[in-house]
Amino acid sequence: MMVFWMGAAMILSMIVAIVHRDGSRNAFFYSALITMGLGAVMFFQYQEKKESDLSLKDGFGIVSFSWIAFSLVGSLPFMLSGSIPNFTLAFFEAASGLTTTGSTILNDIEVLPQGVLFWRSFMHWLGGMGIIVLSIAILPYLGLGGMQLFKAESPGPTKDKLKPRIKQTAILLWGVYILISVLCLILLKGAGMSWLDAACHTFGTVGTGGFSTYNASVGHFNNPLYEYIIIFFMTICGMSFAIHFRALSGSLKAYLQSAELRFYIGIILGATLIIYSSRLDERLPMEQSLRECLFQVVSIVTTTGYGTADFELWQPVAQVVILALMAMGGCAGSTGGGFKMVRILLLGKYLKISLDQQLHPSGVFVIKLDGLRVKREVIQNILGFIMVGICVIVAATFLLCLFGVDVLTAFTASLSCLCNIGPGLGSVGPTENFSSIPDPGIWVLSLCMIMGRLEVFSMLILFLPQTWKK
Amino acid sequence: MMVFWMGAAMILSMIVAIVHRDGSRNAFFYSALITMGLGAVMFFQYQEKKESDLSLKDGFGIVSFSWIAFSLVGSLPFMLSGSIPNFTLAFFEAASGLTTTGSTILNDIEVLPQGVLFWRSFMHWLGGMGIIVLSIAILPYLGLGGMQLFKAESPGPTKDKLKPRIKQTAILLWGVYILISVLCLILLKGAGMSWLDAACHTFGTVGTGGFSTYNASVGHFNNPLYEYIIIFFMTICGMSFAIHFRALSGSLKAYLQSAELRFYIGIILGATLIIYSSRLDERLPMEQSLRECLFQVVSIVTTTGYGTADFELWQPVAQVVILALMAMGGCAGSTGGGFKMVRILLLGKYLKISLDQQLHPSGVFVIKLDGLRVKREVIQNILGFIMVGICVIVAATFLLCLFGVDVLTAFTASLSCLCNIGPGLGSVGPTENFSSIPDPGIWVLSLCMIMGRLEVFSMLILFLPQTWKK
Repeated sequence: MMVFWMGAAMILSMIVAIVHRDGSRNAFFYSALITMGLGAVMFFQYQEKKESDLSLKDGFGIVSFSWIAFSLVGSLPFMLSGSIPNFTLAFFEAASGLTTTGSTILNDIEVLPQGVLFWRSFMHWLGGMGIIVLSIAILPYLGLGGMQLFKAESPGPTKDKLKPRIKQTAILLWGVYILISVLCLILLKGAGMSWLDAACHTFGTVGTGGFSTYNASVGHFNNPLYEYIIIFFMTICGMSFAIHFRALSGSLKAYLQSAELRFYIGIILGATLIIYSSRLDERLPMEQSLRECLFQVVSIVTTTGYGTADFELWQPVAQVVILALMAMGGCAGSTGGGFKMVRILLLGKYLKISLDQQLHPSGVFVIKLDGLRVKREVIQNILGFIMVGICVIVAATFLLCLFGVDVLTAFTASLSCLCNIGPGLGSVGPTENFSSIPDPGIWVLSLCMIMGRLEVFSMLILFLPQTWKK
Repeated sequence: MMVFWMGAAMILSMIVAIVHRDGSRNAFFYSALITMGLGAVMFFQYQEKKESDLSLKDGFGIVSFSWIAFSLVGSLPFMLSGSIPNFTLAFFEAASGLTTTGSTILNDIEVLPQGVLFWRSFMHWLGGMGIIVLSIAILPYLGLGGMQLFKAESPGPTKDKLKPRIKQTAILLWGVYILISVLCLILLKGAGMSWLDAACHTFGTVGTGGFSTYNASVGHFNNPLYEYIIIFFMTICGMSFAIHFRALSGSLKAYLQSAELRFYIGIILGATLIIYSSRLDERLPMEQSLRECLFQVVSIVTTTGYGTADFELWQPVAQVVILALMAMGGCAGSTGGGFKMVRILLLGKYLKISLDQQLHPSGVFVIKLDGLRVKREVIQNILGFIMVGICVIVAATFLLCLFGVDVLTAFTASLSCLCNIGPGLGSVGPTENFSSIPDPGIWVLSLCMIMGRLEVFSMLILFLPQTWKK
């Protein structure tokens, strides 16, 4: 069903192609036809299988394979329009769009037909929609994802429970998502962007993706107003959409009550300050330097990946902060990737308690979040999750190095893809792209992007032999 | 008392200095005098405090401060002989010796007086002695260290319990340690080394330290026989001395029964094979290439740090393997550093079970090691330990970058020092040294070395404010 709708979404890109007469009309027409056809066939084929028949295994399978299927059909317009004829690269670009990573293998995006540019960014927006529902409504049912934290700690109906049924939850959250998107679009258009640029950058911002329509990313415009608008909306979309929904429903206090949110804002301000101080020697105007630092910090921590400055030229300390922000990621329940703020916060609390425990072996220590007690098993899940993430990064780095990529590039590319950010350091830095990575490495990174989006576990489970036993 | 004995140890170096007439005799004489004097004063000052009065806090304090005190007195000969006049650098060199790290800030070690060279390496041997007792006899009583794993899993007297009292345990283990050292010394001398070189390289090998008497490390000799002897003894000393003791007491099967040991040997062989395959293009003679790979793998995994080849010139994949080996470290209860093999092994088992648990949420899964069940809290300790280690590495990398060191150098230097290895990548690569790091960075790294040696926690606890409350 979702594949069918994805085909329908291509029609919108076709309209853009027709308006701009960019020659990619037919590519979208055939892509939409194939995709909708496939969607319809699958829909009628599997319709009889009732929801109640689905096991936990099926759940993992559906979630993982649907993301792969979307990336496959999403790559059709790239190949049919001739923009990216190579299947491997087209798949990577589509996966990068749908997982809102924003890494590209294109050396020059400005030569692409407008329809293809629109489709590229539109996938960010669709992906963002998928992620919100996935992380707030679907993954918790599979025992995964950031929101499971809240579920595990509140046994019974609490204020944090949104409407229980997936469908209703999805519709409510999408309402918030569309509202924010429309606001961003209007502001960007009002500030002076063309409709196409405004739409594409809205998709990239709200989905925290990072595809731009220019090679120099947002830096191309050299327009402080655009940058402030994008900073604001990136920050907003790095927060939990469940909190936005509660705030819109009247309880504005929701923003103040969340420890994760306070931590998130604190990290953004702290990181900006550190990087700003490290750049004092450059003698830039204060406003420009602060804006550049803030933009880059928000862009990385929300895992968007837009650029207005080349942080590879910054001091080493700024680069370390950027790398640390990459791993942290946005808040749970946002469109951002990474390990998620709430996990880092709880990890910090856990480590503090571990030290106390060492001093007072018989003491009883409790971790609290937003006034609620966090169970030990939740902490153990977080530790396990972070360790699995690190193992996947190490494995991906190893594979990339095996294909001849240097250590720094391989490590930061793996980190960037698993955390769905976009740029890394080395030959995948903010002013470069992923075209220098050999084809097998591109497949590894594509897998990393999808894995990162699915909270790692649901994908890894597919590699276990016993998953495939009857 | 131990400080006093350390002063006595300096007399041995003085004898070496006198035999070689290298002009460092007086430096050792005064160092020994000061150290033994200090030791005697402290001994009589605190003699009345009975062991039973010691709290857990005192235990942590004594362990941490004694290592710092040893490094302080250990740096005296460097300063008094004029070999390293700078206090910061002399402290680093002494800490590097005592923690058996083997990192140096000296550009040319071949100009040092023989007495100083001997002292430098002798500190490795003393440090190695201290570490074995620390990790097998003292840290478990503080609830820390690798061997605590065994303690936690065996409630009651089992075959794994060595003689219970610290003093007896220490004497038995030192017997094994001295036996291995004497064997290594005789073999190296018999193979053709001078007495001084044989002694220094025995100290560096058995303590898994890595200080050599030549700038080109073991590569200086270009002698395959020396290399095979050192490979053998590094491998032996990366294993638990408790197992060696049991084997020497008659039960040779002890070697076969340990899962950690099998894992350790497997890792060494696997890593050697991967690196060997990645170097096939270099068209070196097979024996030479295999020997170089095996030497480097064993040297890094046991955290010795001797070099016969420059691994920075190897393929990226070999470098990643080397970095991974750095973090792994030797077996628990050996003189090696790092996270320890048994922790990595249990971590792997835990991640496997986490995936299974995700598929079967109500299933009960048990982790076993050597046929015994491992408690959940042990696993949680390991996860906490690894996370703390990663946090310390990130913090140290951040500080080093703050002082202007580049990212790759800062990261690998921190990793190398915390895991007590020696070389890193970048400007602290195997053919370079730590002299390019600015002074504040040297202090950070000195702290990392001592912290790594004390299993991180015991040192971190000293930074907690409540530790200092009455």
